[in-house]
Amino acid sequence: MNINRQWLLASRPEGMVSENNFEYAETPIPEIGDGEVLVRNLYLSFDPTQRGWMTDRESYLPPVEIGAPMRAGSVGQVMASHHDDYNVGDLVQTTGCWQDYVVAAPGQGPLGLTVLPAGVTPEMMLSIFGITGLTAYFGLLDIGDPKEGETVLVSGAAGATGSVVGQIAKLKGCRVVGIAGGEKKCAWLLEDGGFDAVIDYKSEDVGEAIQRTCPNRVDVFFDNVGGDILEAALDHIGLHSRIVMCGAISGYNSDSAVPGPKNLMNIISRRAKMQGFIILDYIDQAPAAIAQLGEWIATGKMRFEVDVQNGFENIPATLKRLFTGENMGKQLLKIADPQVVPQKD
Amino acid sequence: MNINRQWLLASRPEGMVSENNFEYAETPIPEIGDGEVLVRNLYLSFDPTQRGWMTDRESYLPPVEIGAPMRAGSVGQVMASHHDDYNVGDLVQTTGCWQDYVVAAPGQGPLGLTVLPAGVTPEMMLSIFGITGLTAYFGLLDIGDPKEGETVLVSGAAGATGSVVGQIAKLKGCRVVGIAGGEKKCAWLLEDGGFDAVIDYKSEDVGEAIQRTCPNRVDVFFDNVGGDILEAALDHIGLHSRIVMCGAISGYNSDSAVPGPKNLMNIISRRAKMQGFIILDYIDQAPAAIAQLGEWIATGKMRFEVDVQNGFENIPATLKRLFTGENMGKQLLKIADPQVVPQKD
Repeated sequence: MNINRQWLLASRPEGMVSENNFEYAETPIPEIGDGEVLVRNLYLSFDPTQRGWMTDRESYLPPVEIGAPMRAGSVGQVMASHHDDYNVGDLVQTTGCWQDYVVAAPGQGPLGLTVLPAGVTPEMMLSIFGITGLTAYFGLLDIGDPKEGETVLVSGAAGATGSVVGQIAKLKGCRVVGIAGGEKKCAWLLEDGGFDAVIDYKSEDVGEAIQRTCPNRVDVFFDNVGGDILEAALDHIGLHSRIVMCGAISGYNSDSAVPGPKNLMNIISRRAKMQGFIILDYIDQAPAAIAQLGEWIATGKMRFEVDVQNGFENIPATLKRLFTGENMGKQLLKIADPQVVPQKD
Repeated sequence: MNINRQWLLASRPEGMVSENNFEYAETPIPEIGDGEVLVRNLYLSFDPTQRGWMTDRESYLPPVEIGAPMRAGSVGQVMASHHDDYNVGDLVQTTGCWQDYVVAAPGQGPLGLTVLPAGVTPEMMLSIFGITGLTAYFGLLDIGDPKEGETVLVSGAAGATGSVVGQIAKLKGCRVVGIAGGEKKCAWLLEDGGFDAVIDYKSEDVGEAIQRTCPNRVDVFFDNVGGDILEAALDHIGLHSRIVMCGAISGYNSDSAVPGPKNLMNIISRRAKMQGFIILDYIDQAPAAIAQLGEWIATGKMRFEVDVQNGFENIPATLKRLFTGENMGKQLLKIADPQVVPQKD
């Protein structure tokens, strides 16, 4: 059973990512050297930004090489350790990629190697306490800087990041409006997320709906979507508003570059700020954010939703769910449960 | 001779502004009430933003109404005063509009009513110490926040604002690259403006030229132009760069809204900030800026250029010079010289 199953990037997608862009492979379980640990991946994180990693263009991380396992965040279990800080059996977060086993070490890869705090499940670690939850926290609070009584508009509101953005904004005393696709997501945002209003972009004119739901205009627009939705929002930004440029998922699977908004000039006349960020820049500040998010969760002030698919064979198909809008909350896939490891003492 | 010549906005332009959008009129010289002064306009300021005031859309100021004198900044002379702070003969800056005479009062109109400091000529007041010089000062220093050793790229570099931006950036120890149209302007920026490099957008591929002249990428992009030049610059912005959204003159005379840049996503991957501003928000801080600019001028560290047309009949044609790129430095028009007024004592 010395088999490490993998999904390799076989080709760079043109247009919508497809299962055919990946190739199944089996290799031996790798050996570890000094200071390294062998991690068995249990849960994989699926994130829109992975689509960007498949394209051969300069970005905040180098593209995944053809023939390499697809890059992904994961929670796994330490199966062997040559590092004093990690014990066999520990649950850890790392950049496990689409494979059963990864050789990991602290400081290696974008996510390093972090032992899960006591009481934190893999699902929590990869959603509310992971990249998407932290993206919501720092993007909204550091870039968006929402003030009590302001109006916060969120696109991709039913996603792992958007749903947390809206809830934090509510906790900060803002009026919160979410844009999402479909009745089910919109109902969930109103009932469980506590949003003040929702816009279903699949059945409404988004511009008209923003005007109706944001009568005092938009002070903070947290954008995960880009394209037409960004353009509609720019029509309704207020004076000195902040546009948090988190993502532009509407264009990630386009064959060609998508034109920018025709009303970008509104940034001038309304003295607005449009700012991009990458959560990896905030990793040093993560512990404080996780403590705050954890308190909100523990006191029932915040909820999070995960959408967990199952089975190694379903990994490529699960990525596509992000771009067809099938997921509600954080998209995960469970490869296996942890093993019970005998305690040392 | 009780005649107030005027150029009225006769129609809203479609596409390029034309002399036909204005209509000549003569009205009586207006009467002044309590707290008001009668100002005779001597010099008119021409600014790209005036094109926006001609269009019936929401912006930072209401549009000029059809049949009203075209709005413009001016320096004029007080001919009659019912306000203790203003004496007959004083040179003042105000929103004089395209006419011989205006009834002015402090706090009225976007520019209020300011007596020119001693030693400041109308040409200085309407260029380096006026809206365009202050736009350069606050836009670069407050929004752009340039640091020693950084690379600052300026579009519209030979204009009234761009040429001052570049010189301030040099004084702050930056590498400065300007984008302008034509050999004459480019030579002027290198020889008189002290720019490190220039790009002639009329004869060069702007993207390639930015790459060549900004080998360490662009830390601050001060944009007066928008459109293709903004898109080319966004390809070469550096990490944590600042894009100062001052204007987008390339699109001001378009029949339809111009698409935004296709590479707006670079703002995310490079953690950049794109921020708009309107100089009217900084008017309270103007005295300190004018003092600093004045010191740089007095000590020979800064130069400014004015392009002065003459004659009331040439006012409409002079506005068009801004959009055909004929002006170098600040575009002004002189209606008349000041009159010598007997001193009070």
